[in-house]
Amino acid sequence: MSDDDPAAATALSLLTLGDYERAAATVLDPAALGYFAGGAADELSLHDNVLAWRRLAIRPRVLVGVGRRDPEVTVLGRARPHPLIVAPMAYQGLAHAEAEIGTARASAATGSIMCVPTFATVAHAAIAADAPAGTRWLQLYVFPDRGITRELIAEAVELGFEALVVTADLPVVGVRDRETRTEATVQSSTAELVRDESAAAPTPADLAGNVDPDLRWSDIEAFATEFPLPVIVKGVLTPEDALLAAEHGARGIVVSNHGGRQLDTALSAVDALDGVLDSVGDRLDVLVDGGVRRGTDVLKALALGARAVLVGRPVLWGLAVGGAAGAQRVLEILLDEFDRALALTGCPRAADLNRSFVTAAPWLAGRS
Amino acid sequence: MSDDDPAAATALSLLTLGDYERAAATVLDPAALGYFAGGAADELSLHDNVLAWRRLAIRPRVLVGVGRRDPEVTVLGRARPHPLIVAPMAYQGLAHAEAEIGTARASAATGSIMCVPTFATVAHAAIAADAPAGTRWLQLYVFPDRGITRELIAEAVELGFEALVVTADLPVVGVRDRETRTEATVQSSTAELVRDESAAAPTPADLAGNVDPDLRWSDIEAFATEFPLPVIVKGVLTPEDALLAAEHGARGIVVSNHGGRQLDTALSAVDALDGVLDSVGDRLDVLVDGGVRRGTDVLKALALGARAVLVGRPVLWGLAVGGAAGAQRVLEILLDEFDRALALTGCPRAADLNRSFVTAAPWLAGRS
Amino acid sequence: MSDDDPAAATALSLLTLGDYERAAATVLDPAALGYFAGGAADELSLHDNVLAWRRLAIRPRVLVGVGRRDPEVTVLGRARPHPLIVAPMAYQGLAHAEAEIGTARASAATGSIMCVPTFATVAHAAIAADAPAGTRWLQLYVFPDRGITRELIAEAVELGFEALVVTADLPVVGVRDRETRTEATVQSSTAELVRDESAAAPTPADLAGNVDPDLRWSDIEAFATEFPLPVIVKGVLTPEDALLAAEHGARGIVVSNHGGRQLDTALSAVDALDGVLDSVGDRLDVLVDGGVRRGTDVLKALALGARAVLVGRPVLWGLAVGGAAGAQRVLEILLDEFDRALALTGCPRAADLNRSFVTAAPWLAGRS
Amino acid sequence: MSDDDPAAATALSLLTLGDYERAAATVLDPAALGYFAGGAADELSLHDNVLAWRRLAIRPRVLVGVGRRDPEVTVLGRARPHPLIVAPMAYQGLAHAEAEIGTARASAATGSIMCVPTFATVAHAAIAADAPAGTRWLQLYVFPDRGITRELIAEAVELGFEALVVTADLPVVGVRDRETRTEATVQSSTAELVRDESAAAPTPADLAGNVDPDLRWSDIEAFATEFPLPVIVKGVLTPEDALLAAEHGARGIVVSNHGGRQLDTALSAVDALDGVLDSVGDRLDVLVDGGVRRGTDVLKALALGARAVLVGRPVLWGLAVGGAAGAQRVLEILLDEFDRALALTGCPRAADLNRSFVTAAPWLAGRS
Repeated sequence: MSDDDPAAATALSLLTLGDYERAAATVLDPAALGYFAGGAADELSLHDNVLAWRRLAIRPRVLVGVGRRDPEVTVLGRARPHPLIVAPMAYQGLAHAEAEIGTARASAATGSIMCVPTFATVAHAAIAADAPAGTRWLQLYVFPDRGITRELIAEAVELGFEALVVTADLPVVGVRDRETRTEATVQSSTAELVRDESAAAPTPADLAGNVDPDLRWSDIEAFATEFPLPVIVKGVLTPEDALLAAEHGARGIVVSNHGGRQLDTALSAVDALDGVLDSVGDRLDVLVDGGVRRGTDVLKALALGARAVLVGRPVLWGLAVGGAAGAQRVLEILLDEFDRALALTGCPRAADLNRSFVTAAPWLAGRS
Repeated sequence: MSDDDPAAATALSLLTLGDYERAAATVLDPAALGYFAGGAADELSLHDNVLAWRRLAIRPRVLVGVGRRDPEVTVLGRARPHPLIVAPMAYQGLAHAEAEIGTARASAATGSIMCVPTFATVAHAAIAADAPAGTRWLQLYVFPDRGITRELIAEAVELGFEALVVTADLPVVGVRDRETRTEATVQSSTAELVRDESAAAPTPADLAGNVDPDLRWSDIEAFATEFPLPVIVKGVLTPEDALLAAEHGARGIVVSNHGGRQLDTALSAVDALDGVLDSVGDRLDVLVDGGVRRGTDVLKALALGARAVLVGRPVLWGLAVGGAAGAQRVLEILLDEFDRALALTGCPRAADLNRSFVTAAPWLAGRS
Repeated sequence: MSDDDPAAATALSLLTLGDYERAAATVLDPAALGYFAGGAADELSLHDNVLAWRRLAIRPRVLVGVGRRDPEVTVLGRARPHPLIVAPMAYQGLAHAEAEIGTARASAATGSIMCVPTFATVAHAAIAADAPAGTRWLQLYVFPDRGITRELIAEAVELGFEALVVTADLPVVGVRDRETRTEATVQSSTAELVRDESAAAPTPADLAGNVDPDLRWSDIEAFATEFPLPVIVKGVLTPEDALLAAEHGARGIVVSNHGGRQLDTALSAVDALDGVLDSVGDRLDVLVDGGVRRGTDVLKALALGARAVLVGRPVLWGLAVGGAAGAQRVLEILLDEFDRALALTGCPRAADLNRSFVTAAPWLAGRS
Repeated sequence: MSDDDPAAATALSLLTLGDYERAAATVLDPAALGYFAGGAADELSLHDNVLAWRRLAIRPRVLVGVGRRDPEVTVLGRARPHPLIVAPMAYQGLAHAEAEIGTARASAATGSIMCVPTFATVAHAAIAADAPAGTRWLQLYVFPDRGITRELIAEAVELGFEALVVTADLPVVGVRDRETRTEATVQSSTAELVRDESAAAPTPADLAGNVDPDLRWSDIEAFATEFPLPVIVKGVLTPEDALLAAEHGARGIVVSNHGGRQLDTALSAVDALDGVLDSVGDRLDVLVDGGVRRGTDVLKALALGARAVLVGRPVLWGLAVGGAAGAQRVLEILLDEFDRALALTGCPRAADLNRSFVTAAPWLAGRS
């Protein structure tokens, strides 16, 4: 690296997802930062999502020959180049002018699946038009007026989205103290469908307040039978609900506590995963979400039995710092780390990961 | 919220019970703060009361339909709109000129039961006269001269109080190092009945020194048979004593370590609750006290089997910051958080909460 | 307390053993402080001795009638007014000019047993002459020349000392990094018996280097049969050694890791106590030493089955701050706290304490 | 110690391995420090290596007679004066101009075995020529061109090295964020064999990138049969791989996570040791590596069943601070502490250490 290349110097200082998180905090305005970074109440689940991965130790094997690694996995019956999925995150325009279009390009460039949020800043059709490549899933907040939801789904089918991700853990908005203090106001084309026209500048909580608190498993079944897209239920944390998802026609679930934003002290996904997998086995695809910051976290998720891993805030930090290129770099860093983790764990094929490679950590991953 | 409304601005900064605690610390004089905030000895139980709730994780269920929540519970055989009870706290005049009258109004306005303390700053009759609405229980410190106690109870019957809460865990005063250093002096109309007339300005410890250290279970039985009010024993931490309470005619117990003010390193109530409930089942109503700061704490208490939850210091912080209105706001915040917790836990009726909704937390809730 | 009474003001600020520790650190010269306060190596055992008591929670009982408390215990077959024993500590003249004579007076005034150290600053006979009251035990470091030891014992018999406490855990001096850095030099009349005359100003380690590393159980048996005093072995941490002590004629043991000064990461006494008591039961008296700072610690020791408790550094901090009066005050504070702990635990007689009153703490007593 | 002897003053301040670590941090240039001190990713395994030893408590025995201690152990069938081995560390010239020659002299002077690194700054032959005394093992990074490796081994046989230590846990370079930020460039005579001639100043990662990722157990077997030296596999963390090592002709293994430099959150060696020893028993010699900073750590390793202990960074800190003399002093401190640990644990012969002397620590060795 030459001394007089500022781009290289910056790149050098952005080596890790943590670097992007710190850089984004200096770039974002306080309201946007509060909205994206904040969690529910005392933010115990928010922080525990990161620490939960550290409560697992890796048991690496050696001398198996790892010159060729293969990160390929199978999700919803299709081969994917790797297990990374960009989690649905609303109002990405708060992070960067490229908004969801930047994220879509980064996802496509890295072979990641993108979950397009209901409350996107940019219209879903515009995302598809301006970033045509890549695999997309539609994240659904369901409103009491199911007609709105059906329209969103019909449009997604039209746009070639490949699955529906129904958010189940936001029947009401969580106790978002940090978000309330920083008071972001947001724009979303979808929001026009549901919002009270009289409010000039809605907050995220205002818009989320339109979600139907009476969504039920029968709705999942209805979506699964009515539309040609596989349905994934996001926000499952118990074996009981995992079974119900399978019984109501879901093809997958995302084990998640909504990034620690909804119910503080809810279990972290990593701690719920064992029970969930014991109950449903292979009846549906189990994905996991929350706190993934290192390639070793991705490896641990797969070793526990998850088929893929949603990554949220880090992609947004990349977007905030550098638009599509920044988001892409975040995903590339994580993929490189995952590749090295496969080699150093002595399991060169991601599809071969299993529980023998992880164990409860003998150390303490305390909460600060 | 308009920018030029200072009341709204203040309200915005007082979002949580923790906010009220911090604000009260700036409003109270040091002696009052030391008395209210302090605990016994090294204050390990004081802090652990808050942390103990964090050692429980929530296992939320989804898609059950939570559009209507019902926080109603049954206490002493009567329906209550919600499980909040204002804990007995002495000398509330140290916090605010409205003293117990402010707290009584806040309790009544929110449908909470108020435990009126023996050592109230304001006479019990005056509380009843100036804040006639609301359900009241009388907290009893019992003196060697049982005549004084009988007079207090007879007056409480007269004033329409609905239960007696006999404090069992203050036979002597704890090692109150912080309180001793800050040296509050107090006034109490009840205190006139017991105090040494020669001491010009008694401390709380002086007055508490009049409590009978030889109170016994037979006294509980005597109160229960002699008076028309149900008796609740406050300060039980073992299954053995819970059984004794049932056998001696108590209708309820408060599992409590006296807010960490009496015996440092005594178990926190939340850790004692399982054993207590295993031993007494439904033979009496089990209430819980200590460290409740969030709606999720209330939910966890009920999930463990408690019928209601006493909240102490936070109400006092509200009183200190804003009189009756402040105390009321604290209770409202907690009720709003409890309502969201019911929705997000997927158990919309408080009466349906049970142990399946909580589990030992996989994380560490360390002591600082 | 009147505002213009500086003595009372000082007394108010010295409420706890922790207060005395902090005050002593400002009074002692750095070399003395380093010698007294320091532990072995990374001082993990030093700190853990204090924390270990916090890993026990108290299960208090209520309404048993505690107007009269009785702290009396039986040690070596004799009634003692309470379970406090002043641990052997060398070179007390480093702390205060009154040296062991001050400690002896404080011990006698409070009814505590004093362990007179081999390496006392003041001659043993002078201690007995200047502080004639009180019960004394002789702490023994045994030298290769057993004649010196026999002389010390014979003198102790003469002076009316009632037991021998043989230190078993200093065959060599521990890795005393803090002590080495601060370099105290010491004087001791006993030291004249063993030291190399050529060294002008010996360090504690120099003198301790004269202890016989080849002391064995057979020596214990020899002391027990040869002299008319009961023998107590100090420094036992395993059930195996507790049994050996009983088999070799010891009447008691002190479960101790030498105040964390000898072998870092050795078990704390409180953690060794259960195993020791399970193995020896009532075959000898089990005493405990290390980290006692609060009356609740004393209560826990007895609840676990110890007959008495040695208190070391805190007495020295009292001596440093106020001579005999300071040492006495430290013991009085601890006795007052112990008295309140008996009342609040609902076990007014110390002799009735048992394991039902304590349980493994649900909280974490982390190491900083 | 006289006041005017600066050498003695310095010696006094360098009492512990921690002192040398802190001193080295002030002496080394940032790039060298980053390379030597850094670990993988979030450095959780790096720190845990040190803390893992603290999760074991010692159960010391007393009165067994410890006047004579014997630190002798048997490694690869030969008696060694003590269990210390200097771990292989590359590019020691970054630490001090004496480089590996200084370390070789320190090792020889203290009777330690030295693992000579593949990537030594000084040629292997020069080390042997300039520091002829002492026992040496050759650490091997194996390259795709096995000819290079065979040449290195042949030379080692020629130079009298007594074993081969094949590094198994660096098929690819770990995520070395700290190292990447500080950017050391290195020189190594061996490096000339493998490096890309066009790169002017290679980094450690550049050179390590030449290691063969496809090294397999069959290579171990080939080395073991082809050369007259016993083969030790370094980097084993599972019982399964320990068995494979035995089956493929290895005479020993080093249980190690590569000093926390390769796979973050991999188990620490001390936590892997029990399982490994249960699986292989005496079929091969089990050595342990990582985080040894105190004589008690060495004792614990042997008590768990390891035959010897590799010490890495601390020797380098000694080298950095004082060349060969500094490295020697570090080893001497550790040996002195180990000697005292033998005495104070009541097990004067190192060969007699067994699991009865250690137990899981009741305290918490938290991660900061």
